Amino acid sequence: MADEKLVYFFGDGRAEGRADMKEKLGGKGANLAEMTNLGVPVPPGFTISTEVCDIYYKNNNQYPDSLKEEVEKNLKKLEDLMGKKLGDPKNPLLVSVRSGSAISMPGMMDTVLNLGTNDEAIKGLEEMSGNKRFAWDSYRRFIQMFGNVVMGVVHEEFEKILNSQKKKKGVELDTELTAEDMMEIVSACKKLYKEKTGENFPTDPRTQLWMSIDAVFGSWNNERAIKYREINEIKGLLGTAVNVQTMVFGNSGENSGTGVCFSRDPSTGERHFYGEYLMNAQGEDVVAGIRTPESLDDMKNEMPDKYDQLVRIKDKLENHYKDMQDMEFTIENGTLYMLQTRTGKRTAQSAVTIAVEMVKEGLIDKQTAVMRVSPAQLDQLLHPMIDPKAKVNVIARGLPASPGAAVGEIVFTAKQAEEEAARGKKVILVRIETSPEDIGGMNVAKGILTARGGMTSHAAVVARGMGKCCVAGCSDVSILNDSECEIGGIHFNAGDLITLNGTKGEVIKGQVILVEPEPTGDFAELMKWADNIRKLKIRTNADTPGDAENARKLGAEGIGLCRTEHMFFEGNRVDAVREMILSDDEVGRRKALKKLLPMQQGDFEGIFKAMDGLPVTIRLLDPPLHEFLPQKDDEIEVLAKNMGVHLEKLKKKVESLKEFNPMLGHRGCRLGITYPEIYEMQVEAIFLAACVVKKNGIVVEPEVMIPLIGTLKEFSLLKDLTVKTAERILKEKNEKVKYLVGTMIEIPRAALVADKIALIADFFSFGTNDLTQMTFGYSRDDAGVFLTEYIDKGILEKDPFQVLDREGVGELVEVGIERGRNTRKELKVGICGEHGGDPSSVEFCYEVGMNYVSCSPFRVPIARLAAAQAVVKGKK
Amino acid sequence: MADEKLVYFFGDGRAEGRADMKEKLGGKGANLAEMTNLGVPVPPGFTISTEVCDIYYKNNNQYPDSLKEEVEKNLKKLEDLMGKKLGDPKNPLLVSVRSGSAISMPGMMDTVLNLGTNDEAIKGLEEMSGNKRFAWDSYRRFIQMFGNVVMGVVHEEFEKILNSQKKKKGVELDTELTAEDMMEIVSACKKLYKEKTGENFPTDPRTQLWMSIDAVFGSWNNERAIKYREINEIKGLLGTAVNVQTMVFGNSGENSGTGVCFSRDPSTGERHFYGEYLMNAQGEDVVAGIRTPESLDDMKNEMPDKYDQLVRIKDKLENHYKDMQDMEFTIENGTLYMLQTRTGKRTAQSAVTIAVEMVKEGLIDKQTAVMRVSPAQLDQLLHPMIDPKAKVNVIARGLPASPGAAVGEIVFTAKQAEEEAARGKKVILVRIETSPEDIGGMNVAKGILTARGGMTSHAAVVARGMGKCCVAGCSDVSILNDSECEIGGIHFNAGDLITLNGTKGEVIKGQVILVEPEPTGDFAELMKWADNIRKLKIRTNADTPGDAENARKLGAEGIGLCRTEHMFFEGNRVDAVREMILSDDEVGRRKALKKLLPMQQGDFEGIFKAMDGLPVTIRLLDPPLHEFLPQKDDEIEVLAKNMGVHLEKLKKKVESLKEFNPMLGHRGCRLGITYPEIYEMQVEAIFLAACVVKKNGIVVEPEVMIPLIGTLKEFSLLKDLTVKTAERILKEKNEKVKYLVGTMIEIPRAALVADKIALIADFFSFGTNDLTQMTFGYSRDDAGVFLTEYIDKGILEKDPFQVLDREGVGELVEVGIERGRNTRKELKVGICGEHGGDPSSVEFCYEVGMNYVSCSPFRVPIARLAAAQAVVKGKK
Repeated sequence: MADEKLVYFFGDGRAEGRADMKEKLGGKGANLAEMTNLGVPVPPGFTISTEVCDIYYKNNNQYPDSLKEEVEKNLKKLEDLMGKKLGDPKNPLLVSVRSGSAISMPGMMDTVLNLGTNDEAIKGLEEMSGNKRFAWDSYRRFIQMFGNVVMGVVHEEFEKILNSQKKKKGVELDTELTAEDMMEIVSACKKLYKEKTGENFPTDPRTQLWMSIDAVFGSWNNERAIKYREINEIKGLLGTAVNVQTMVFGNSGENSGTGVCFSRDPSTGERHFYGEYLMNAQGEDVVAGIRTPESLDDMKNEMPDKYDQLVRIKDKLENHYKDMQDMEFTIENGTLYMLQTRTGKRTAQSAVTIAVEMVKEGLIDKQTAVMRVSPAQLDQLLHPMIDPKAKVNVIARGLPASPGAAVGEIVFTAKQAEEEAARGKKVILVRIETSPEDIGGMNVAKGILTARGGMTSHAAVVARGMGKCCVAGCSDVSILNDSECEIGGIHFNAGDLITLNGTKGEVIKGQVILVEPEPTGDFAELMKWADNIRKLKIRTNADTPGDAENARKLGAEGIGLCRTEHMFFEGNRVDAVREMILSDDEVGRRKALKKLLPMQQGDFEGIFKAMDGLPVTIRLLDPPLHEFLPQKDDEIEVLAKNMGVHLEKLKKKVESLKEFNPMLGHRGCRLGITYPEIYEMQVEAIFLAACVVKKNGIVVEPEVMIPLIGTLKEFSLLKDLTVKTAERILKEKNEKVKYLVGTMIEIPRAALVADKIALIADFFSFGTNDLTQMTFGYSRDDAGVFLTEYIDKGILEKDPFQVLDREGVGELVEVGIERGRNTRKELKVGICGEHGGDPSSVEFCYEVGMNYVSCSPFRVPIARLAAAQAVVKGKK
Repeated sequence: MADEKLVYFFGDGRAEGRADMKEKLGGKGANLAEMTNLGVPVPPGFTISTEVCDIYYKNNNQYPDSLKEEVEKNLKKLEDLMGKKLGDPKNPLLVSVRSGSAISMPGMMDTVLNLGTNDEAIKGLEEMSGNKRFAWDSYRRFIQMFGNVVMGVVHEEFEKILNSQKKKKGVELDTELTAEDMMEIVSACKKLYKEKTGENFPTDPRTQLWMSIDAVFGSWNNERAIKYREINEIKGLLGTAVNVQTMVFGNSGENSGTGVCFSRDPSTGERHFYGEYLMNAQGEDVVAGIRTPESLDDMKNEMPDKYDQLVRIKDKLENHYKDMQDMEFTIENGTLYMLQTRTGKRTAQSAVTIAVEMVKEGLIDKQTAVMRVSPAQLDQLLHPMIDPKAKVNVIARGLPASPGAAVGEIVFTAKQAEEEAARGKKVILVRIETSPEDIGGMNVAKGILTARGGMTSHAAVVARGMGKCCVAGCSDVSILNDSECEIGGIHFNAGDLITLNGTKGEVIKGQVILVEPEPTGDFAELMKWADNIRKLKIRTNADTPGDAENARKLGAEGIGLCRTEHMFFEGNRVDAVREMILSDDEVGRRKALKKLLPMQQGDFEGIFKAMDGLPVTIRLLDPPLHEFLPQKDDEIEVLAKNMGVHLEKLKKKVESLKEFNPMLGHRGCRLGITYPEIYEMQVEAIFLAACVVKKNGIVVEPEVMIPLIGTLKEFSLLKDLTVKTAERILKEKNEKVKYLVGTMIEIPRAALVADKIALIADFFSFGTNDLTQMTFGYSRDDAGVFLTEYIDKGILEKDPFQVLDREGVGELVEVGIERGRNTRKELKVGICGEHGGDPSSVEFCYEVGMNYVSCSPFRVPIARLAAAQAVVKGKK
């Protein structure tokens, strides 16, 4: 150990480290070394390796024997290179000390700047810079930082001194303080330091240096850092490195300055060198916004040689890192230094453009390009967004249930929504919760806001399906009546304007300007590359021909979930459904079902046409029957009148269908078992439709899916019913149609007995919404109340209804696939829960060997990209 | 194959078969052989082995070559032994032909008696018996049986002939018909046979014999037999055997007779030879009940030598089979024959007495005795039962939710129940469903009848806990108002008498006489033996000191589940609970909780005292808070007034606590996470109580149990809270109390991550009620609607809330135990769901290595016995 190199020098165009030595040098140290080796001007310095940190903790807080000597050697080298000496009263070397581990880690020690100043050295700085105020200001800053960062003196205490000096001099800005003021402040700061630490401020620069180094290594195991590593499950790091680097000053005169720049435009992706700078200023000043920075384009005119040098460096760095760079630079007395370069953050639009253009420039390959765009970001390209420059007044927060933004007038009922929309008004539907009866109103609304319900509540699921903005479960909404509500304590009337940000779950007072993004040609190009890479098929959840067409445009390769019950609500079909429910016997039910049959058949014809040539998975009736009846007394009365049914009879029926826990009640295949005639009608409709469209030359591949299966026998009874009915229709119509009969795996037990179910199932589709509900015992409609707290307290990392829980639910999915394929090797397996559109979950689906994922139409592009990224990640 | 022996002879004191050859000879054949070998007089005959059946089906319905020859050889042997010949017109041998497989199987071919009669042979029979009518009656019976059983002619067609003859002769009874009538009937039957089969009735006895043998083998694979084997999962049998046995006639004269007898009294178990017989009669006549049979005691006087012979045979058979025997005998012309012996059916009382006495007699050992009583039967010994002799008018059926029977006047509210009970009335509480607020009324009622809810609904669980009879989910009950209802279409007013049979789930109109059984000394003795054998500890689910004492008397070795929430409803405590719920902040909640603290502490003191020296597992608050608030508008109004709370505020709170699926909502440890002060109060109460009773010399072992855990972090937060609070109290009180902190495993995910949870859990208790709900996705309160149909249709074999589903839920239990013990070898594991009292589930718990099961007090003896039987079965 002791023989190993502990300190790595960088400067003068050569460095002992490299970018790939992050583990030893930390991210910052490795990057400084890399830039140095590239010939980029970087203030010289050295990095104490992370191994020192490791040895320090393993040896009872003792450094390796050779460390002192190595640091001295490197310091000497630095002094020689710079022609300055630490603490030299004539020509002092000032350095910064920074921590830096392989993974960026908030909670570790902050920077100490200007180390090396003391009462003697400051005179040298004063002389060298010819700027007394600058010198003493630098000294002041050092004492503050050292006192705070190394010794733990509260920052505000130092600020008080500064403020009282400003008050005393009757000035407002720090810049209005004179050199003499700074000298007074320095002396007060030293006094405070002594008071708080019991020791004099250390004047010896070597003492300053070692105390700072100790502090960095000490901070590796402070509570915040340990907690951060725990929460983020960061393991296997040796420790932190320490970077000691020569100070350069952008504020040392009129020939100095500082700036930030991006190698391409971070908001559009355009290949335009973009940035801002300020002369005679420090980094902080640019951030503080006291002076308005100038554009880099101005620098081109004012300092053409520095600008040219910067452009050359920019090109070099971008070519080297092969990605858009976000850089910081400082000019000290006419000399340009690069302080930092890192991969630049960017908008979705920009990410796409940069990735595509870089491929065209030959800088990166297509796989790399595909990895450069975050799938979650894609949402921005598919929905209207709030103008990033707009000032917004957020009055309440709910769940970000469906992305995008919407502005409109408040309405409180589906009826109001339809009426106002018919008058050309843009409306936002505000409800306690939505139900299938609200579909019409939801469809015409620009956005939906609910007081109750989770990420997979009715409102959320339907809104995502429609690609419509929705904020759900916003408990700050209270609806007073059909024309008034309070949101976040503010009173609103019907017709008042609000804005929703469904991407963030925000409710905003008044009207905010929205940006309508358009998927560009670059977007389409990138998606094509993704499609070529990915192995998973991407299907969509769509219940109408319109949805299906939309999804197909967005790249869907089939329907993975067509919910037949949504069709039951359209127009006045629900009347026939209700007639069926109220029938006393099978004969009556069959009579009512006969009315529904042609309507369902029509739906399926439309969907088959829209999906010509692609598979369509149709789920037979799933929700409990009471969802089709009104629950409130007045609504029941109206219905009884309309249907000509005795009120008491209707009430009794509603009462008898009530369930304590409908999610675990009489629904799904349980309906198919107790009322086989319902499933029979649905299967008839599917195959009658298939025969009709096939005659018109449409290629049709129905996949009949039985929901909520928990035992082999359930599935076997209902598969028999399906096959018998299908064969009967095909024989009657003298047609041949290839079809599959499969099941959802959404009940924990189904995953456990998957080997048996696979004996007769052609496919499995994991319904991970319900599977998550039952595996966790969380009702997705009710869990909102505690889920937020669960995530805040770190009990859950993510909402398991958004991101598939690999540990629990994921194990059941894996078990289900493994057992299913053990029985039937060629079993087709997919997912149709909300997770099908979540990037991390898509990755999981690929890893466990699914054939496809299915998601809402507007998440299809996200799933396509995520599926491609999963392949690339898998190769690495 | 062809070399193997195919036919086994029995007769004259020697048989080629034995009792342990059931697989080859079927149950009946093996038993006849065994009796013969014992020297018991059995009509001789031979058995064609089940292997013939196997070969027959494997060889395209062809018998093995040597069969014919073997049958002839054995027939010859039989003829020689009897001194008669098949079809001999002078001295004909008549035989019976019967099927018989290793497992008794309804649906296979019935008996053919009197085979060998024809127009010639009948004369021989007439001569031999000197009884023409008997001879022709025998012939008639043979044609009928053969026609029906072998040729499938409908039995009623033959009966019509008999009836028309009786009409013609103006008589009522068969016995009034003369020999000549019988001759006419024989001729008519032959005609019918020809009409229906197209063939003449076969006159050749060998043809009769082979046709009968063919029919027996053919019936092995008839639809009913196949279905029966399917339903009962009977596999691995070779086929059926065929028994050909000499006929003996109890109706051949005044010196003949027939009877049935039991080696001990089947209803009391008394060692008293018990039975009935009829002279000059056949078995059918005893059953038909036309003549009153005489008691065996009379036989002692009337036919002392036959009686003595029968007693010797009885003793021999009981000593041989070492169990109470149910025997059939026939006396033919003064000669006694045993036709059958089998293990006798018996009441619970009798089973216990016989088992215990047989041990005392040295006939069986204790392990065998323990296996002789069915645990399910024990219920009969612990609850009042409907007098088995009573005639009952069952008007509706529901679920057998809690065993026993009850008679009382109908009441419709808990309040009515309490008022009427206070007046000394016996009442039956009839409700749509019960809620925790009904506890008072349930407690005073004799029985509970609900219109809704399953085997684990509130009513069912509470009733079982109280050992009170309950019929739940009886959909034929409709409650019209607070003083009227309809049950099974019959109108009842409050105060009308009904009887409930909770063991069968029956509702009976009016008052029925009940029998109050008392556990006898034999019962206690048997339970002691069971206790010595079993390895599982048996605990009880008890929420009150009274329950706890009861359970301890019944043998409970601790409490496995003490539900703290039931305590929240007692008296006016619920006021404080409601105050807590309505508090706006933690301060308010703590104030209200302070009021509850001394009450809970008192409860725990009582329970600890009752359980002195035994472990007590206390589950912290589990149900959602809305269960403590009224739901109906008028009740809310009353409460608002009583509490002095603003009505709107209360309504809002009730509304905000409403859940779509409370079972999957904000309950269990989720309450502990969001309102830690509730759990803190409960833990305080537990340890304050422990300190108090310990000072009084009570040995106390609290086990704090956190419900509904799904992740390690939930448990870790709440375990910390528990330990911190416990240690604080113990330090304050300067006491040391040994305690454990563990969790329920009732969420599928918890079983999957059991390895992690076991890192810090001292014990697991499987909550298989909830685990079943979530693994199947069945709400136990709602599943009643389809579960019955599921069982009828064979989708489920048993109600999974009654008998643990080994395939699905069981796998999760096994996984949970295995993973838990992988982490913590000494992990204590138990079960506290309803399954803890179900014998088959108890066996499962033993097999998977649990330490204990916990069940309602009244099921403790059942669990004790089942646990012992599991050990004995495991050894076999």
